[in-house]
Amino acid sequence: MNILLHGSGNVATHLALAIHKTGHQIVQVYSRTKASAAALGNRLGVPYTHLVDEIMQDADLYIYAVSDDALESLVSLNIAPQAMHVHTAGSVAMDIFKGYKKHYGVLYPLQSLSKDKTVDFQQVPLLLEASDEVVKQALDVLAKEISGQVHHYNTEQRLKIHLAAVFANNFVNHLFHIASDIMESSDIDFNLLKPLIKETIEKISHLSPAEAQTGPAKRNDQKIMKQHMEMLKDQPKLQNLYRELSQMILEQYLHQS
Amino acid sequence: MNILLHGSGNVATHLALAIHKTGHQIVQVYSRTKASAAALGNRLGVPYTHLVDEIMQDADLYIYAVSDDALESLVSLNIAPQAMHVHTAGSVAMDIFKGYKKHYGVLYPLQSLSKDKTVDFQQVPLLLEASDEVVKQALDVLAKEISGQVHHYNTEQRLKIHLAAVFANNFVNHLFHIASDIMESSDIDFNLLKPLIKETIEKISHLSPAEAQTGPAKRNDQKIMKQHMEMLKDQPKLQNLYRELSQMILEQYLHQS
Repeated sequence: MNILLHGSGNVATHLALAIHKTGHQIVQVYSRTKASAAALGNRLGVPYTHLVDEIMQDADLYIYAVSDDALESLVSLNIAPQAMHVHTAGSVAMDIFKGYKKHYGVLYPLQSLSKDKTVDFQQVPLLLEASDEVVKQALDVLAKEISGQVHHYNTEQRLKIHLAAVFANNFVNHLFHIASDIMESSDIDFNLLKPLIKETIEKISHLSPAEAQTGPAKRNDQKIMKQHMEMLKDQPKLQNLYRELSQMILEQYLHQS
Repeated sequence: MNILLHGSGNVATHLALAIHKTGHQIVQVYSRTKASAAALGNRLGVPYTHLVDEIMQDADLYIYAVSDDALESLVSLNIAPQAMHVHTAGSVAMDIFKGYKKHYGVLYPLQSLSKDKTVDFQQVPLLLEASDEVVKQALDVLAKEISGQVHHYNTEQRLKIHLAAVFANNFVNHLFHIASDIMESSDIDFNLLKPLIKETIEKISHLSPAEAQTGPAKRNDQKIMKQHMEMLKDQPKLQNLYRELSQMILEQYLHQS
């Protein structure tokens, strides 16, 4: 397939690199700013543009790996309405294409992608949705050339998965950030926590998160929880977070026991 | 050294198994209930008791791997006041021994230990504290026979590390629990999130948690955050947690940019 890629951010870059390894051709990169279009275009060695008028009309598949705001305005442009169009967003309904394009779908990589960090796309679950059988089959073929984990979900399911992913990734990372701040406030190396963090993940490969829970809140150890709250007294937001998470854990295990 | 072990829970069990591999002898296991004393004693093949009067007086080192409440009452018993006594708690001051024992300290394994899950003690950081040089050296020798990661910290530092550990382990695991509930509410397998969770941890081996942050809150993507809040409208506690964590991330990156 001839693929036109909208976007030059984290998802666009990693996806482009993964597609580049298949037999499919990226025929053009479009990005809103000249510099970023050039950066990704040159990296891939393919034509690029930042001008809407220059977007090629004859690609087979248009992939939109852009911010949600940019997505809405791009989709409504009168570009190749008969071709296939897919976005890569976890939280945008497939129907955003409805009325503008004939064949459309979603190709959502369920992974946290940063420009600075390479990723093995073979290990990235790709969640697909398609408006019709033509798109479904074309996407499935493409996706399976990129990743070993291809799944079909509807918009509602994908939205739920994305919400769960925010808890399991973005919020978890923020808790690491908090832990690292606490350590650094006493000049203690955050690396000291790495074996514990590794084990936290290791555990849920054998046990459900419910079974893997440990700690003062699970044990209803009021004395330690009070002590921790006292230690956080100058950081009311952290104190609040500590109280709420402990309360949630406490209630979970009181109900179960 | 001849070691007497108080306790039969997760920490006591894993620590006993690790000590068992060294040249040191566990001469007796004490636990409050007969069944649990017998269970660990028999597993190790060493004498055990649940009667305070039968606790041996001539051990070199008494290790207290018991709940904080049990710790207070055990320490105050008139047992071997001239020997070395150490507890294994992250959040108890070393001075709990003061006035009761002459030589004392702390041997805190910074790891989440569950009975059902084996652990490689070589990889478990052991945080030591000692009342004097005699205890310091004896503990250091013992700890290094058990683990490749031995550190000395005072009570205040250990308390901070334990607080950070609650965020990085107990609260993180609870976020996994929440994510798994969200997935299961739509009959979607939690395993789908495992590559993302693996990457969340993988990232902070190369980047600081501050650098590794991604997601709607970091991007200040109000539209997606509103959508997620709407999806959680029947779960006010989760909604609240989502709002607060997003707000914290948002503020972190607004200040930095």
